[in-house]
Amino acid sequence: MILDESNLSQLARGCAVLGGGGGGDPEIALAMSVLAVRETGGVRVIDLDDLDGDGLLMPCGLIGSPTVTVEKIWSGDEGRVLRDVVESMRNRPVAAVMCYEIAGSNGLLPVAWAAKLGLPILDADGMSRAFPEMQQQTMHLAGISASPLVMVDEHNNRVVLETVTNRWAERLARRVVATFGGVAAAALYQMTVVQARSAVSQGSLSRALAIGQALNRAAGDPVGALVEAVGAVELLSGKVIDVNRRSTGGFARGFAVVEGAGGYAGELLRLELQNEALVALRDGQVVATVPDIISVVDSYTGNAIGTERLHYGQNVSVVALSCDPAWTTEVGLEVAGPRAFGYQLPYVPFDGARLDQGEGVVCQPART
Amino acid sequence: MILDESNLSQLARGCAVLGGGGGGDPEIALAMSVLAVRETGGVRVIDLDDLDGDGLLMPCGLIGSPTVTVEKIWSGDEGRVLRDVVESMRNRPVAAVMCYEIAGSNGLLPVAWAAKLGLPILDADGMSRAFPEMQQQTMHLAGISASPLVMVDEHNNRVVLETVTNRWAERLARRVVATFGGVAAAALYQMTVVQARSAVSQGSLSRALAIGQALNRAAGDPVGALVEAVGAVELLSGKVIDVNRRSTGGFARGFAVVEGAGGYAGELLRLELQNEALVALRDGQVVATVPDIISVVDSYTGNAIGTERLHYGQNVSVVALSCDPAWTTEVGLEVAGPRAFGYQLPYVPFDGARLDQGEGVVCQPART
Repeated sequence: MILDESNLSQLARGCAVLGGGGGGDPEIALAMSVLAVRETGGVRVIDLDDLDGDGLLMPCGLIGSPTVTVEKIWSGDEGRVLRDVVESMRNRPVAAVMCYEIAGSNGLLPVAWAAKLGLPILDADGMSRAFPEMQQQTMHLAGISASPLVMVDEHNNRVVLETVTNRWAERLARRVVATFGGVAAAALYQMTVVQARSAVSQGSLSRALAIGQALNRAAGDPVGALVEAVGAVELLSGKVIDVNRRSTGGFARGFAVVEGAGGYAGELLRLELQNEALVALRDGQVVATVPDIISVVDSYTGNAIGTERLHYGQNVSVVALSCDPAWTTEVGLEVAGPRAFGYQLPYVPFDGARLDQGEGVVCQPART
Repeated sequence: MILDESNLSQLARGCAVLGGGGGGDPEIALAMSVLAVRETGGVRVIDLDDLDGDGLLMPCGLIGSPTVTVEKIWSGDEGRVLRDVVESMRNRPVAAVMCYEIAGSNGLLPVAWAAKLGLPILDADGMSRAFPEMQQQTMHLAGISASPLVMVDEHNNRVVLETVTNRWAERLARRVVATFGGVAAAALYQMTVVQARSAVSQGSLSRALAIGQALNRAAGDPVGALVEAVGAVELLSGKVIDVNRRSTGGFARGFAVVEGAGGYAGELLRLELQNEALVALRDGQVVATVPDIISVVDSYTGNAIGTERLHYGQNVSVVALSCDPAWTTEVGLEVAGPRAFGYQLPYVPFDGARLDQGEGVVCQPART
């Protein structure tokens, strides 16, 4: 598979849905990746089996608040800086680029960097969605070190972290990002292809692309398209009647309330936000939680609406999608379940299809 | 000259005076350096002329709030980590260690590191005193880059900064230090011996040692000893009657008021503090300002009292000492004059002896 001008906008639509409101608005990253593939003729999407076992993978993307991410323009040269620092630290060439997060702009910007570097991109990521913290990656669950964690800003300031734990990497990276004005381009969790086999969420780019292609065909029924493509479940459709959002400590935090319409008239859905939508309560009942993906899409176009773009009066559908099953294990929930975000709630599986490990696709849609 | 058990405590006394209240309490660093030279037999103090012109110098010390610095115990292995990272970044061996700051614990800890590394230490520093920020170094005035700025904490977390300006290095380092719990061991402003000739403040260790030796001989007249050794000027002697101090953003900020006694009865001296004592006002008149050194010493022992140890009721003498003349140039004052610290004041030279550039000693005492 080749990513080029013909399919990048569909990838962007899919990444926005998988972001669950996080990952940053893909608009600028889409423009950057389109410009990059115009110059280079497209980026090859590869699987782990296409690479030598000792090939070095470079997961990368932006770290920071999506509220800020959408406001910064990057030169496109960040990928080269990251690659150069990684290669000098690791003393070996990077074999392929990888999105650390298949969400929002972070599903697109690594495509632009791969194009400019002439490198392929792996059909995988480290989250299967968006998460706010750097230890919330499947590589962390697999015992891979986030270090050396390389960060660069738009001025070409560079920071390299070598930490004793991945939580230290998160703490330090968050402060550096705040000093960089809210966002950094970053490479982290470098690993070999052999390590990646049990450490990455495979099929992520394909899944995002499938979502985008389905939405393109949807013609006014985005929920139907999402159910068909990835077994999403509709939690509620209606109008946004309240949004409370603030940017603190590098995160966009708050809540949003959607008032049901049509078949959902009289119902209220409240979303708890920390960059991503993390908990959905319908009439006070928890109906979906992190690590599953809770995504707010425009009811007519199906375009996902990032946390930073939510506002009063939008007509939206809120859907739930399954995450990588690594996240619903006991260890996965410790790192990225509701309690990891401060909610005194157990994980509540939504009533829908599960993502099957290994295939990277949904078993069967539960609601049609 | 060799630094060993016979003179390290005198060096510590001198560093405390030159710190002007900053640099951290030398007690723990003194213990560490004594232990280190017991193992290795002393550290050779060298001049620039003792080294090859292309030899690499490694200025180092702790970065952080002295309030925290005195509470952390270091393993002594930090120096090796710093040296190893510097050598791998620079691709060449370190020829000598150097104190970036001849003040408080930062005048001692590099001696311990040099001992453990079997390296000599340069008779020089980058401040001639203590300053709170990392761009406030004579190397910065000379156009040397602070990068790569290497930091390590007591857990062995490592951060390397490569910044486009030294002010960026300061901003980032400050955040990292806060995340490290208030203090980091650091190496920065690496340079060759040739570069150092016009970039470092020479004679710093000798000056600190001369102060310590003079105080050891002083027998109850510390101001007299300081006047004799380095041309200090007494600003006031009396009792501390007010201290306001808080730790914010990695700095200890506040003020202290000393009520005059004896020949100073009826006079008040107010000290403005930002890690160091930066401005002295006697009865409302500015009598000394940064970059000159304002030091508070115990009236009987002559031991300097760090900003973090000042408290009500202490009997103290407040003295002013000259700094490296690089700091009283126009460029020097921009970086480290009163306005650089937010005081809307011009630099006010105290009425005393000036440090002569090149010799690293005082021209002539003005008050005897």
